[in-house]
Amino acid sequence: MRIALDAMGTDLAPEPEVLGALDALKVLDRDIEIVLVGDESVVRAAVAKHGPIPERLSFHHAPDRVTAADAPASVLRKKPESSIVVGLKLHQAGQVDAFVSAGSTGAMMAASLFILRPLPGVDRPAVATLLPTIGSPVLLIDAGANVDCKPQHLVQFAHLGSVYMRRTMELAEPRVALLNIGEERGKGNEVIAETHELLAKEPGIKFVGNVEGRDIIRDTCDVLVCDGFVGNVLLKFYESVAGVIVGMLKKKLAGRDEGALFEDVFHVLDYAEHGGAPLLGVGGVSIICHGGSPPKAIRNAIRLATRAVRGDMVKHSAQDFTAGAR
Amino acid sequence: MRIALDAMGTDLAPEPEVLGALDALKVLDRDIEIVLVGDESVVRAAVAKHGPIPERLSFHHAPDRVTAADAPASVLRKKPESSIVVGLKLHQAGQVDAFVSAGSTGAMMAASLFILRPLPGVDRPAVATLLPTIGSPVLLIDAGANVDCKPQHLVQFAHLGSVYMRRTMELAEPRVALLNIGEERGKGNEVIAETHELLAKEPGIKFVGNVEGRDIIRDTCDVLVCDGFVGNVLLKFYESVAGVIVGMLKKKLAGRDEGALFEDVFHVLDYAEHGGAPLLGVGGVSIICHGGSPPKAIRNAIRLATRAVRGDMVKHSAQDFTAGAR
Repeated sequence: MRIALDAMGTDLAPEPEVLGALDALKVLDRDIEIVLVGDESVVRAAVAKHGPIPERLSFHHAPDRVTAADAPASVLRKKPESSIVVGLKLHQAGQVDAFVSAGSTGAMMAASLFILRPLPGVDRPAVATLLPTIGSPVLLIDAGANVDCKPQHLVQFAHLGSVYMRRTMELAEPRVALLNIGEERGKGNEVIAETHELLAKEPGIKFVGNVEGRDIIRDTCDVLVCDGFVGNVLLKFYESVAGVIVGMLKKKLAGRDEGALFEDVFHVLDYAEHGGAPLLGVGGVSIICHGGSPPKAIRNAIRLATRAVRGDMVKHSAQDFTAGAR
Repeated sequence: MRIALDAMGTDLAPEPEVLGALDALKVLDRDIEIVLVGDESVVRAAVAKHGPIPERLSFHHAPDRVTAADAPASVLRKKPESSIVVGLKLHQAGQVDAFVSAGSTGAMMAASLFILRPLPGVDRPAVATLLPTIGSPVLLIDAGANVDCKPQHLVQFAHLGSVYMRRTMELAEPRVALLNIGEERGKGNEVIAETHELLAKEPGIKFVGNVEGRDIIRDTCDVLVCDGFVGNVLLKFYESVAGVIVGMLKKKLAGRDEGALFEDVFHVLDYAEHGGAPLLGVGGVSIICHGGSPPKAIRNAIRLATRAVRGDMVKHSAQDFTAGAR
């Protein structure tokens, strides 16, 4: 299996990418190869700093780089030699099995949609992200790709999320919930109330009803469906609360030997644990990471990519949408 | 000043109310009187358990109680003798200056709207709640009263929130931000993008632009405007993350003498710090608390009520809406 990694994605590129890739090669299965996509001389030098170049690591040259100043929709046309476009095209051509990038989220979404194309029957591909909870992680979908959603889009997110959790997390029957402001059906705004009715009778998913904000981290569901506006606000809020609290705890514990005491607290708050967010509903495995990803998050995003490939996620999603004739 | 407190609101009523009221009388200004509204013999007995009845504490009998089983809209008709309805009517009649309840949020909103009436010019009264941050608290408005909002409603929330922060928190010029998924104007869904344009040219408020989920707890604004769906999800999520993290920390620290080490962490996470959520835009001071409020939250909600009364919040809100002819 070959995973392409954008070596020029993070704010501190290529160092976090290189360290994440090197770590992934150590801890993941031996049949996994990583292709670093970026300015080859720069990336090669960054790897060489850490020792001889591992056998399962290779390079693919992409001289250009997407920046925050680039309008996402114009990247394909204006930066065809950027690591994002080159990496996605490698994937589309079948030369790699997945693409991971911590570059511009907007550019990754736009380029993935254009190059990998939505699966037949999928109106709105969505970004999904695993949130840490006190139990197993919950997949939040959509985490920001679609800010105005109709009920049928939210139902599609439920399917995309279910297939993803089945194929990558080995859950036989993922519990799907609808993010709402009350537990009873009929609660919420118009779109959400109608979505509840649709999900309640939708075949192929295990709908467990509404989940409120207070129950998200209590491990009440495996897939949490919401529109990309709410999802994005929630995700960024969680990350910041986590960041602030962990920062405070670490400051308090500096120089003390008690960090381990708080490991389960850190665990619940550590979004880097789950690394990246796949764009679901396109014809490939495209994983989007934070610009601020540390090496651990990059490594875990690579692991997510390998799971999606191993689980044949794209094929099963395509079948799910063909079968349902949605 | 007389504050009426629903003695039968919390899940453990009347104990948290009684303790909160007794504490408030100790720590707040000496001109504050508290009227406990509820089944008088029950409430009186609960107070007597803690010693002689303080001079500035009195009772107002209300034999009935709103429960979770009561439909909010029917409370006025079906439970006219409930502590919520009796307490709000006391306020409406001018016998008390504010009413605080930890009873059913829905019933408090419906009864407050009906008994206290919306202020002229206010289309949608909204629930506002203070969120702890690493700096000064931020007022989230709407926290759940209005799940489908138009841009002009959100602009009204900005005014209601600004007046509240000016009159109760002594901020001369509260910074108003719009909750969004990006910093640039034009970001977000249709309603939010249009609201941004309206706020940018709205007189009488200090609009500082969009704030993302990640910046909420970083003390970037004083008033954060959003619809009641997003606000409610966010608020409940914050409370639950806070609850889970604080619970984990306390468990770790049980029997150790290090709780003080983490006081600022607890402080950021302690929503009880700010106690209650006022329903803004009605002709009175109506403060809604959690059903699970501990005495400290009740005491702090009483304090919020006294500040709103002292600051003549209702009068200033009414003037703001009359002046703007919105």
